[in-house]
Amino acid sequence: MADKLIIFDTTLRDGEQSPGASMTREEKLRIARQLERLKVDVIEAGFAASSDGDFEAVKTIAQVIKDSTVCSLSRANDRDIARAAEALKGAARARIHTFIATSPLHMEKKLRMTPEQVLEQARQSVRFARNLLDDIEFSTEDGSRSDIDFLCRVIETVIAEGATTINVPDTVGYAVPEQYGHFIKTLRERVPNSDKAIWSVHCHNDLGMAVANSLAGVHIGGARQVECTINGLGERAGNCSLEEVVMAVKTRRDYFQLDVGIDTRHILAASRMVSQTTGFVVQPNKAVVGANAFAHASGIHQDGVLKARDTYEIMRAEDVGWSANKIVLGKLSGRNAFKQRLQELGVSLDSEAEINAAFLRFKELADRKSEIFDEDILALVSEENLSGEKEKYGFVSLYQQSETGEQPHARIVFTVDGAEVTGEADGNGPVDASLKAIESIVHSGAEMVLYSVNAISGSTESQGEVTVRLQSSGRVVNGVGADPDIIVASAKAYLSALNKLQSKAERVAAQG
Amino acid sequence: MADKLIIFDTTLRDGEQSPGASMTREEKLRIARQLERLKVDVIEAGFAASSDGDFEAVKTIAQVIKDSTVCSLSRANDRDIARAAEALKGAARARIHTFIATSPLHMEKKLRMTPEQVLEQARQSVRFARNLLDDIEFSTEDGSRSDIDFLCRVIETVIAEGATTINVPDTVGYAVPEQYGHFIKTLRERVPNSDKAIWSVHCHNDLGMAVANSLAGVHIGGARQVECTINGLGERAGNCSLEEVVMAVKTRRDYFQLDVGIDTRHILAASRMVSQTTGFVVQPNKAVVGANAFAHASGIHQDGVLKARDTYEIMRAEDVGWSANKIVLGKLSGRNAFKQRLQELGVSLDSEAEINAAFLRFKELADRKSEIFDEDILALVSEENLSGEKEKYGFVSLYQQSETGEQPHARIVFTVDGAEVTGEADGNGPVDASLKAIESIVHSGAEMVLYSVNAISGSTESQGEVTVRLQSSGRVVNGVGADPDIIVASAKAYLSALNKLQSKAERVAAQG
Repeated sequence: MADKLIIFDTTLRDGEQSPGASMTREEKLRIARQLERLKVDVIEAGFAASSDGDFEAVKTIAQVIKDSTVCSLSRANDRDIARAAEALKGAARARIHTFIATSPLHMEKKLRMTPEQVLEQARQSVRFARNLLDDIEFSTEDGSRSDIDFLCRVIETVIAEGATTINVPDTVGYAVPEQYGHFIKTLRERVPNSDKAIWSVHCHNDLGMAVANSLAGVHIGGARQVECTINGLGERAGNCSLEEVVMAVKTRRDYFQLDVGIDTRHILAASRMVSQTTGFVVQPNKAVVGANAFAHASGIHQDGVLKARDTYEIMRAEDVGWSANKIVLGKLSGRNAFKQRLQELGVSLDSEAEINAAFLRFKELADRKSEIFDEDILALVSEENLSGEKEKYGFVSLYQQSETGEQPHARIVFTVDGAEVTGEADGNGPVDASLKAIESIVHSGAEMVLYSVNAISGSTESQGEVTVRLQSSGRVVNGVGADPDIIVASAKAYLSALNKLQSKAERVAAQG
Repeated sequence: MADKLIIFDTTLRDGEQSPGASMTREEKLRIARQLERLKVDVIEAGFAASSDGDFEAVKTIAQVIKDSTVCSLSRANDRDIARAAEALKGAARARIHTFIATSPLHMEKKLRMTPEQVLEQARQSVRFARNLLDDIEFSTEDGSRSDIDFLCRVIETVIAEGATTINVPDTVGYAVPEQYGHFIKTLRERVPNSDKAIWSVHCHNDLGMAVANSLAGVHIGGARQVECTINGLGERAGNCSLEEVVMAVKTRRDYFQLDVGIDTRHILAASRMVSQTTGFVVQPNKAVVGANAFAHASGIHQDGVLKARDTYEIMRAEDVGWSANKIVLGKLSGRNAFKQRLQELGVSLDSEAEINAAFLRFKELADRKSEIFDEDILALVSEENLSGEKEKYGFVSLYQQSETGEQPHARIVFTVDGAEVTGEADGNGPVDASLKAIESIVHSGAEMVLYSVNAISGSTESQGEVTVRLQSSGRVVNGVGADPDIIVASAKAYLSALNKLQSKAERVAAQG
């Protein structure tokens, strides 16, 4: 039997650290459920000690997720570790992931600690963590740029203290595959108790080699865990992408000789969910999940593909969730057909009430649009107020007009705590006027840091999906809205973002 | 002295083969100039025999570009090769790049030829090409899946016939770095006359490893040319990305010990130009050129970066064209400041008339928008009708309105061959209504296959830039429009796409 490669997803922790990718607890929970459906082995749900919001997110996910191990990051100190353990209480399977930097540069410039102090802190923190939980992962931050002798001492020490997984990150994306693979190999050969732990790799993509570095760590180095994120989300150029590393191991099983537990059919739905939630678009030429990943254009290639599919295709689009023939729903489609399509798309709504709410929106949309595509359905269920939770702001209606030579103007009616209000404003364009009309009532003072539009089925007859990212008092939220009218979609997205700012503010206030 | 690594850019050939990325001759020329500014060693300008349009594009680029070698792809037959040579006539430095598939699967299923026939055709075509030009590249398509004994025979033969560069592509993105690197190494060791040619790699990104595979081919295998594209554009998941492979070699010079001639400060401008021209967005977490590639979010990292920049940064943003502090222009900025900013952004307009036209637009925009960002300027100059060429369709004015519960309506005035016409229509949304209003007059029958919006400075006060991709009778074109009013930007983009369809149709008709 082949070894198993453990897939450790950190979309909710390292991914969420990308500027602008912060998510609410509800969004994280929805993504965690999708990761569980993907059969991810370990879900890093957050960094519990970093904020009350992160603590709550880890706690919620730990209580709901049953099939995957739930993990919290934690610096190498007792307070952080205790906080992580507290958030993970009651989880079916829990892991604490503690880390400290081991490179000369990071120890001297960032930590301002001597190597001996770092070694001692690593020892103490793993000892403390091991008293709270059995499953302890230890990371040597900036490991790939650390002195190998020192790294061996640290790793030997933490394994002796009971660390069960050893992760050697390429924190700054500096590694080259062959070199990094041999680095991991040498470490495993030199650390006397190396066989007492599972070795892990965590690579960043600054030079475009995160996937190859991770796999060199596995194939040459003998690591058996890969840390990765959906869409390669993560700080700067992001992390190793889950979909790429998984499909590489599956497609090149002849070479890697490893099993992975991932149910790849849910990959595309996961990719779309993460992209919609964060507003981080996936480029068309992104491997596996990009719109063009399975498309062929040139005459020569088309001819080849027609003659024998495997001349140019090494994976099957269906295996990662692209449906070969899209079933198109319309206004005559019933609740069951809708529900079945949701299931096929990998979307599970939390309750019958949610399905009913989504179906109602589906019928409304079908009255205005003759063909409903998968993208439309995914947009419907990605809108925020499905949960039936009472939101502070709700869209009612919009009038807007623009004419060359005049200032665009908008008048919007929306609810504030259930009561209808009307705002009016001019702006640089009709979207700008509509959002200013909302602000004329709300006065949030929030700064808009991203406005992005996805036309979700290629033509302007389809719905537009808008993401608005707002920043206020150090908090960043993303709001999403979908509508065939791009101005209405923008207004809905803006109200959705304001609702999130609101609920974040209330939560922080409640926790005092 | 270190060896030089030759950078062969195929954005205009393999990149353009992506579904939807087709470009006009003018667009290709503009990109070719940017590639020359980047100091790319070889520009693959097209596949001259594939269409009259490609022939014209190669010919135009061959006549204009002086510092880079200009190359045309060609199948391994006399007709294709003669056509490539004809297109390249008059070039300062010219290369013919001929190819034939060598894998059992491709020979049997696609070519329906025996290995002996393939070998003979390779021999004949290189012999023929070498009579026309000195610089001949030969590619073994699907090389990484070919039988090594057969591959050695083919390569030995074509080198004996005078091929000066041997390229062994990983056509389907199936390779793994270590294995691919050793494959190239073995080939070079076994082919007796291997030192008579420069070896080259050409990798696709289907499993996310194109950059690492290319560099393994270089470092382990001894290749000294890398084929790549801006933004990794290319069929399916695209090609090896130029910016990543170049920055990897530069950043890890300690490991690769190679020189590259690229002037990296023009990378970002090249990336934006290719993205705007094709409508292929660059995701925020794309290495080197993504919006987040040099951004830091988490508290820990920010702290680290403040203490010492190199704790988390292995490259300097300025080195690839991100300006540390953006100079913001306004309505009082003069023509010289504008011209200087264009130069700093790596944009060179073809004539004083073009600069004047761009400056006029700049002043118009500055009247409506208080701060003009770099993105605004790049959008200004990416609009199509700068060249002063007479376009068939021109935007004049637009009135549109939408109101919840009613059909959105638009009335547009535009010129057809200089005469004003007015179209009106309803639609699913105001964008849809505006484009239908254009179609009510034009009746192009074109199918819209992409509609995408870039808000170019993060907030809705800024301009929106819209790309519309139209398909008609097998031709695909992209139109781009920018305006603070997203509906107007959409109408401009649509008219620009119609102009391109028009000029493509006229060119084909003129050539009979």
